[in-house]
Amino acid sequence: MTVTLLLHCPDRPGIIADITNFITENCGNVVYLAQFVDHVENVFNMRIEWNIDEFLIPKEKISDYFGTLYAKKYDMNFRLYFSDNKPRMAIFVSKMSHCLFDLLARYSAGEWNVEIPLIVSNHPDMKHVADMFGIPYYVYPITKDNKLEQETAMLELLKENNIDFIVLARYMQIIGDRMIAAYPNKIINIHHSFLPAFVGAKPYQAAFDRGVKIIGATSHYVTAELDAGPIICQDVVRISHKDMPKDLANKGKDLEKIVLSHAVQKHIEHKILVYKNKTVVFS
Amino acid sequence: MTVTLLLHCPDRPGIIADITNFITENCGNVVYLAQFVDHVENVFNMRIEWNIDEFLIPKEKISDYFGTLYAKKYDMNFRLYFSDNKPRMAIFVSKMSHCLFDLLARYSAGEWNVEIPLIVSNHPDMKHVADMFGIPYYVYPITKDNKLEQETAMLELLKENNIDFIVLARYMQIIGDRMIAAYPNKIINIHHSFLPAFVGAKPYQAAFDRGVKIIGATSHYVTAELDAGPIICQDVVRISHKDMPKDLANKGKDLEKIVLSHAVQKHIEHKILVYKNKTVVFS
Amino acid sequence: MTVTLLLHCPDRPGIIADITNFITENCGNVVYLAQFVDHVENVFNMRIEWNIDEFLIPKEKISDYFGTLYAKKYDMNFRLYFSDNKPRMAIFVSKMSHCLFDLLARYSAGEWNVEIPLIVSNHPDMKHVADMFGIPYYVYPITKDNKLEQETAMLELLKENNIDFIVLARYMQIIGDRMIAAYPNKIINIHHSFLPAFVGAKPYQAAFDRGVKIIGATSHYVTAELDAGPIICQDVVRISHKDMPKDLANKGKDLEKIVLSHAVQKHIEHKILVYKNKTVVFS
Amino acid sequence: MTVTLLLHCPDRPGIIADITNFITENCGNVVYLAQFVDHVENVFNMRIEWNIDEFLIPKEKISDYFGTLYAKKYDMNFRLYFSDNKPRMAIFVSKMSHCLFDLLARYSAGEWNVEIPLIVSNHPDMKHVADMFGIPYYVYPITKDNKLEQETAMLELLKENNIDFIVLARYMQIIGDRMIAAYPNKIINIHHSFLPAFVGAKPYQAAFDRGVKIIGATSHYVTAELDAGPIICQDVVRISHKDMPKDLANKGKDLEKIVLSHAVQKHIEHKILVYKNKTVVFS
Repeated sequence: MTVTLLLHCPDRPGIIADITNFITENCGNVVYLAQFVDHVENVFNMRIEWNIDEFLIPKEKISDYFGTLYAKKYDMNFRLYFSDNKPRMAIFVSKMSHCLFDLLARYSAGEWNVEIPLIVSNHPDMKHVADMFGIPYYVYPITKDNKLEQETAMLELLKENNIDFIVLARYMQIIGDRMIAAYPNKIINIHHSFLPAFVGAKPYQAAFDRGVKIIGATSHYVTAELDAGPIICQDVVRISHKDMPKDLANKGKDLEKIVLSHAVQKHIEHKILVYKNKTVVFS
Repeated sequence: MTVTLLLHCPDRPGIIADITNFITENCGNVVYLAQFVDHVENVFNMRIEWNIDEFLIPKEKISDYFGTLYAKKYDMNFRLYFSDNKPRMAIFVSKMSHCLFDLLARYSAGEWNVEIPLIVSNHPDMKHVADMFGIPYYVYPITKDNKLEQETAMLELLKENNIDFIVLARYMQIIGDRMIAAYPNKIINIHHSFLPAFVGAKPYQAAFDRGVKIIGATSHYVTAELDAGPIICQDVVRISHKDMPKDLANKGKDLEKIVLSHAVQKHIEHKILVYKNKTVVFS
Repeated sequence: MTVTLLLHCPDRPGIIADITNFITENCGNVVYLAQFVDHVENVFNMRIEWNIDEFLIPKEKISDYFGTLYAKKYDMNFRLYFSDNKPRMAIFVSKMSHCLFDLLARYSAGEWNVEIPLIVSNHPDMKHVADMFGIPYYVYPITKDNKLEQETAMLELLKENNIDFIVLARYMQIIGDRMIAAYPNKIINIHHSFLPAFVGAKPYQAAFDRGVKIIGATSHYVTAELDAGPIICQDVVRISHKDMPKDLANKGKDLEKIVLSHAVQKHIEHKILVYKNKTVVFS
Repeated sequence: MTVTLLLHCPDRPGIIADITNFITENCGNVVYLAQFVDHVENVFNMRIEWNIDEFLIPKEKISDYFGTLYAKKYDMNFRLYFSDNKPRMAIFVSKMSHCLFDLLARYSAGEWNVEIPLIVSNHPDMKHVADMFGIPYYVYPITKDNKLEQETAMLELLKENNIDFIVLARYMQIIGDRMIAAYPNKIINIHHSFLPAFVGAKPYQAAFDRGVKIIGATSHYVTAELDAGPIICQDVVRISHKDMPKDLANKGKDLEKIVLSHAVQKHIEHKILVYKNKTVVFS
């Protein structure tokens, strides 16, 4: 079993030495270490993972010890993730299947250390896909009038199922503030443009109208401001004058699903740190 | 010798047959043909190049004949370019050398069918580069007060030298309306972002602030609205959280010079058609 | 309804004019035209598609008429495809699901004009995926001793089901000569390297051992020589010294499925011409 | 002033703690730290750079102290580079100017901490470029008969000028064993293909003949076996059936110059570690 420590704090000399000493002296074996110093903000960021099979500190006390010995000293913001804990992920979807299939195909192949106990939608259209994979599918139709109460019901469902994070697989509804507050930096969205270009609805039509020669897709954490949350992953594909809006939509589908799945994978692997509306994504 | 015909017109059946018949029957030999129908706007676009060494119609009458026989019939907007005519290109530059060197290195190697009779700048800094390549370098310092009269002087210089088109090789001044009007779709700019993201000044800082994972560069024709002209070419490069604004600027330099030179090459080869603020770029 | 004409022949003046005249005069309406002249081999290639709803020549006689009037004159190799005919595709798979899921997800979403009546495998492992999509799954275990007779049985199955073309979705068996002969340029394989680098087994290990900085995937038609058939599509992804062979395999999976699906799409759209062990792939 | 420490050794616990302690306790300030553990070979690799303005150990004794205190303990292979030392680089070139111009343009702009005291060629063709930049140009024509003695003379020239490393900017001669031995992992070549595909002469023609859809360029250190040395950097560009061998050569030029210059930059920044014929390239 391993534990992964994600942390950031003001940069000061001695942090790496202290932490690696802590692990080594207690018979832990480091299997991953990546750090990054943001010299603009003077922030030290680190992801370190070590084997705890022979660690002298019991698993349930590691957080206490580390917090007491180092987190206070360095004013750290830190999190511990144990490899025997499977995060629980909910998928939100509307009417398009490509991202949903891509996520579920990886899940079905056992590529990810994750549980997917449920799928939520504002439309019944994707129920057959959920059924194929044997995952419960809940429909919450959204209108102007019922949006607030439907989100309340959805939040309850998520809590009952101990959902850790949410993936919006082309879910075409704006997420309300209460849900964002309940899942801070834990809702991953795919936007079908190269952000910050073409924020909002119909980005492929907007890209066509502007005559760009490359289109993109962006996965990001959802924040209160639309399409403005911390970016996790982006990719692009070349287009030409021959591509009409429907061609852009088709070419974009492959981007969307790959860019979204990459973000989900990084999130599951605890390789993303967020601060100041930006991400550090460790490789 | 060859002639290149660039045209666009409302799409109707028979255009390709008519034009290729016209060439074949008059003993021309087609060496390049590319066409594209914009079904959204119903516009037919074509670039066709043929060898005129044995063409029955004399070189100087081709335009007349073609105009009379076909352009009227199909309501065509067309241009002819003869391969023995070398376009004359002016480079505008400010203080950075990377785009300038890339353009002049290609010119010096004879890669392009073009003349570069002069370089214009608002600063003296790049004179040594112009000197290395033996090209006259004219300095027009720009202030708020003298902008209009300096542009008048520059326009005069361009006319005296029969300049056909202008390349802004990181020229950090907004081009005035009179110069844009004098060179419509004939001023090529390189903007150091992935347009329409990060219009205006300091795009690398803006990209850093937004936390994007990919940066880009865009070459486009200059129009009255800043950074909003028809896009010719774009490219991108991946960055990470490790890249500070100065790293973005460094990585971006290679993009900028390649993306600008590609646009210049397409322009010189007469492979760009412009309409509705968009380009058709033939391969 | 439309018909698509794919042809190649020795290049001569007048071909385009003749063909577009033929269509226009008989009240066809061209919706797609792309041509390419290979000046090295002097071969003219064309894909032209036109609406035949009001075409004066009856659908079943178009081939006769075109063959008599033009194919002989120009020594053409041509094929006609009518849009109301759905090609029938068989998938071959072994033990990995990522390409299979990607193909079936697109099929299930109705993205392709194709029928998939069956899936063939040398292992039972992927039966659950076939079941999810309701497609019959046939297992033909292959050993050194039974390879010939199993391929005979497979060929029979394919014929009984009127299979038009075969997609090898990471099928880890070398295809025998008789099957290749029965499906010339109709078996699409995905090889998990950037061909011609790393032909044969274990390309990711070989890429790791060589220390390359980019890995790739290649879709191609299967010919008698292993991994040497006409290339349809290739793509690459950057790797670094941090990537171990298993990381290459993981990163490669996304490439493989996208590159294979692109090739299948081009094949279904009749946009691929093959000659001299190379492809012309129209956009 | 900073010092950069590049090292590799068998992986053992405590290395990072020891080294960062060593620096911190002696009043050094770490400005860069990247490490990588090759778990396949069990090799620990590190690049660490620290400010030595207030370092307690005098500059000229750092190597001694570090070697005595840590290198023996961990069986390290290490190198120290001080930022006030400018490496001296020789360029070898034949008849093509694109890589040469790209290197010299960066040099002229002051982008690199390097001296270029001389350019060597087997042809006089590029003398005018060397003259433009004011760099001595030495011609050593090579024939079958004089190759050995010319290389002897070249080696002498390099030694007289205290050349630290060599950049082959499309130098079309195979480097002899003695020169390779004199500059181990210090001769950077650009090969105009995606290695290991298309080793040897005429890779663009070979790529055309094979019908690949992407071409590449590879920078690598020169070893005794042709085009088989440790790869530093690779990049690719898409091509299509429309591209003839000369088009590949043209498109490849931009790749070559960028990929070569990136490798040179990484080398100058001491960010490359070589072992087992592979590179670790720190970002």
